[in-house]
Amino acid sequence: MEVLTTQILTDVIVPRPLDSHKGTFGRVLLIGGNHQFGGAIIMATQAAVASGAGLVTVATDPSNRTALLTRLPEAMTIDYHHDDLVMQQLSSADVVVIGPGLGTDAIALHLLQLTLRLIQPQQRLIIDGSALTLLAEHQLPVNHQQTVYTPHQMEWQRLSQLPINQQTEVTNAQAKAKFPGIVVVKKHHSEIYTSQGTYQLPIGTPAQATGGMGDTLAGIIGGLTAQFTRDFTQTVLAAVYLHSAVAEQLATTNYVVLPTTISESLPAFMHQISTAPNN
Amino acid sequence: MEVLTTQILTDVIVPRPLDSHKGTFGRVLLIGGNHQFGGAIIMATQAAVASGAGLVTVATDPSNRTALLTRLPEAMTIDYHHDDLVMQQLSSADVVVIGPGLGTDAIALHLLQLTLRLIQPQQRLIIDGSALTLLAEHQLPVNHQQTVYTPHQMEWQRLSQLPINQQTEVTNAQAKAKFPGIVVVKKHHSEIYTSQGTYQLPIGTPAQATGGMGDTLAGIIGGLTAQFTRDFTQTVLAAVYLHSAVAEQLATTNYVVLPTTISESLPAFMHQISTAPNN
Amino acid sequence: MEVLTTQILTDVIVPRPLDSHKGTFGRVLLIGGNHQFGGAIIMATQAAVASGAGLVTVATDPSNRTALLTRLPEAMTIDYHHDDLVMQQLSSADVVVIGPGLGTDAIALHLLQLTLRLIQPQQRLIIDGSALTLLAEHQLPVNHQQTVYTPHQMEWQRLSQLPINQQTEVTNAQAKAKFPGIVVVKKHHSEIYTSQGTYQLPIGTPAQATGGMGDTLAGIIGGLTAQFTRDFTQTVLAAVYLHSAVAEQLATTNYVVLPTTISESLPAFMHQISTAPNN
Amino acid sequence: MEVLTTQILTDVIVPRPLDSHKGTFGRVLLIGGNHQFGGAIIMATQAAVASGAGLVTVATDPSNRTALLTRLPEAMTIDYHHDDLVMQQLSSADVVVIGPGLGTDAIALHLLQLTLRLIQPQQRLIIDGSALTLLAEHQLPVNHQQTVYTPHQMEWQRLSQLPINQQTEVTNAQAKAKFPGIVVVKKHHSEIYTSQGTYQLPIGTPAQATGGMGDTLAGIIGGLTAQFTRDFTQTVLAAVYLHSAVAEQLATTNYVVLPTTISESLPAFMHQISTAPNN
Repeated sequence: MEVLTTQILTDVIVPRPLDSHKGTFGRVLLIGGNHQFGGAIIMATQAAVASGAGLVTVATDPSNRTALLTRLPEAMTIDYHHDDLVMQQLSSADVVVIGPGLGTDAIALHLLQLTLRLIQPQQRLIIDGSALTLLAEHQLPVNHQQTVYTPHQMEWQRLSQLPINQQTEVTNAQAKAKFPGIVVVKKHHSEIYTSQGTYQLPIGTPAQATGGMGDTLAGIIGGLTAQFTRDFTQTVLAAVYLHSAVAEQLATTNYVVLPTTISESLPAFMHQISTAPNN
Repeated sequence: MEVLTTQILTDVIVPRPLDSHKGTFGRVLLIGGNHQFGGAIIMATQAAVASGAGLVTVATDPSNRTALLTRLPEAMTIDYHHDDLVMQQLSSADVVVIGPGLGTDAIALHLLQLTLRLIQPQQRLIIDGSALTLLAEHQLPVNHQQTVYTPHQMEWQRLSQLPINQQTEVTNAQAKAKFPGIVVVKKHHSEIYTSQGTYQLPIGTPAQATGGMGDTLAGIIGGLTAQFTRDFTQTVLAAVYLHSAVAEQLATTNYVVLPTTISESLPAFMHQISTAPNN
Repeated sequence: MEVLTTQILTDVIVPRPLDSHKGTFGRVLLIGGNHQFGGAIIMATQAAVASGAGLVTVATDPSNRTALLTRLPEAMTIDYHHDDLVMQQLSSADVVVIGPGLGTDAIALHLLQLTLRLIQPQQRLIIDGSALTLLAEHQLPVNHQQTVYTPHQMEWQRLSQLPINQQTEVTNAQAKAKFPGIVVVKKHHSEIYTSQGTYQLPIGTPAQATGGMGDTLAGIIGGLTAQFTRDFTQTVLAAVYLHSAVAEQLATTNYVVLPTTISESLPAFMHQISTAPNN
Repeated sequence: MEVLTTQILTDVIVPRPLDSHKGTFGRVLLIGGNHQFGGAIIMATQAAVASGAGLVTVATDPSNRTALLTRLPEAMTIDYHHDDLVMQQLSSADVVVIGPGLGTDAIALHLLQLTLRLIQPQQRLIIDGSALTLLAEHQLPVNHQQTVYTPHQMEWQRLSQLPINQQTEVTNAQAKAKFPGIVVVKKHHSEIYTSQGTYQLPIGTPAQATGGMGDTLAGIIGGLTAQFTRDFTQTVLAAVYLHSAVAEQLATTNYVVLPTTISESLPAFMHQISTAPNN
């Protein structure tokens, strides 16, 4: 298992090309946020916006619209019950993040199936939260290379059928082989399983152990894979590292690091990385 | 009466264990916020989130949902008219805070009775605000050891039937004996009545004398009892002390200290405590 | 005409008594905010809360409730169409502010008439914005000593029937005599007409010349007259001075000073005053 | 093509006259924000308020009202479906900004036609976003001198029928001649075509390449043309320069500069300009 270093940040988060426009930095579509779990999609969206995605659209339950609009006027919102709107966004997105606060009811399942059916090879797909539970429960096949799965250990158990106490580097890598793309097993020192090998995150802080942290990670992966398209695996590794690196920095002055505080800190933190001496 | 010192803060608010996840820091369910008093439950929820609870859910009137979601995407929201949802949350919570902005109508009474019936021994229960009035008016018996009551003097009069001018250390302690758990009588230099003895808060500032301060205290007690489970009484004492210690610090530069400002200051203040030399 | 100095601030904004509670600092009821002008009542409310009122309630159009709750959980909200709720609040308030964003339709007129009928001698009344227009249009008599009127020059023309170019110290003082209480004529160097004499505000900045400034002033007068009850006239003078003193300080670094920025700055600014050497 | 310098900022953004009121700094009416693109009108409105417009009103879809009110109580809101309200505002505005998030449906077209019909010579008109698309699609004639069009290159292609790769200084100037007023072609180093000549913006940063940047520019042009009425062309040039100058300053510490961060920085940045030695 290769242990990641800050090198992954400076490798990926490079200065922006001078002659660019919002299209250069990609369109992200986030799908999630039912009536009960609206906060999750808000936190994921904030992370996508703050990490630099060019254009961000959210497909969500309409009861989340005003809160999203108030917090994040930068993001556009559509009602996820309207298939035509969702399909239109699915076709124009560069990155699709599905799962934060999605829940596991019929509309959630429908949206996941729609996404899996319509996703195109050049698009990146991040599957998070309850979408992972749906994937496991309904045995939905994923036929898409540029996919990231972000299960915590219990969700990974559901997906891989490996009980938590049997999740080792070897068993995880074997189970991962059934899934095209990259699996991020979230835990103390998260592990990232890719077709190129396995990576470990050596950083992170218990101050991060609070609700919404995973939603924020999903949004950051969305934001970075929208912008940095040279190497999908490297970009995902950088996103996972970035999330905890910001949290560690904030934890030097905060007992608990709220997910929204991480997002607020992204523009300044990413600036530091992109202007580091070896960048 | 034992006078509390800052020692109670460093005793309780210790560095977090490295290998932890959001479940480690407890699930808090807050019940309150009717149509008129929605702000109270928002302030209590913000305090619970900012003081480090792992997962926070709010059962409230649906008219408060958008404001909660906008201010606190970290918290999940359910409609408190749905018994099935409330009961499900009541069964999975580690801590239940009931009362901020709850009001005293039929649904309020029903929710309090439901809580008192379903609460389990290992759970912590904080009864605040109008829930205390309901307790007194309807003579509802509390049979739960890990309970905290947070009456101001008038509410304590209703509960104890002691007129304010007859509330002394001795009479209060006698009256408290009828209530399992801990009674925090909120006043200038609040007094905390426990089965282990009586404690006095020597700090506090008139800058705190503003609406919502009590709701914030209830949320902090919720947040701390969710995380620090070694000694219930000590944790409650620390929460009461923390609330006023933050306010005192803020009052060195503010004529009035708003409740939400206290909550915003909790992560940094608790960090200072947890990294103090004797911690 | 007596020119005010900063002395008025230190005379009125004194350190808070140590043994106090939220009731000590008064209950403010604000009435205003129709569907079109909701922002006005929000800005007035924020000023009342931030300037230190003990408890703040807003009677407003229900379409303003979520925005109020999101920005100001410290304030309670009632629907101003419910006479019973409004009358209950009118009877328990120490200070009533009526007018910001109230409009001039039937419900606005009804609320103003209700207020003028129910106001009690010990209560303070601030009449602002469209309530002044209603007063003039409907020739409503005010029989209440502790009243403050806050017209700008055009509103004062409507009230006094003095065309702006005929508004001099002498004519204004004569016209003022018909109104019990204090008239604040808002202009470049505002003038305050009282039964004790006329005062002039020598400070202020063009950076303040932006929508919502008057609503903020009305809220500050509400907040201060709720807390400082020793001398009504002095307190009103201090409120008018405070509003522009904060704006002047902010204008040293801002081209335009937004009303909400003034309110955010009140707790720190008032702290400076209350701890000034001669205080 | 004349290359702009910071001189344009100090020429236009001068200290405010001492004896002024909110009317001195103009009334801005913004028209836009349908159900899907509500964020765009919020961002434009925030820019108009923060850049110092005296009074700001927004005509928008009612589903955007609560978010607007929460973020910007300084702005008044009307429902853009009510012709009488819109027409009343159109007649009293000094500046009309139409287009941010307007969409291209029937109500959008109606509002644009209404605006083009009612606009008066002394009013300033900014046409942005989807209003430009409507202008092109429906071949709507503009007969108003004080107009600013703010197309990006693709929108300019639609308006001018010049494919992007044929958009040169010469062809653009020729195409511009058909449009009364000023055309700002937004791109890396934007170009401003006026009847007095062509200007180039030499500043700007890729950190600005994010959704909402154009809406913010439209709002700033609205805010500045409301206040600075000496020379329309100069003021528009200053607004375009100001937008990127603020972004450049923020980009020295931020990897991505969010549009709302630009607006928050306007009061302090404009203060620096207005107090610069040569001002």
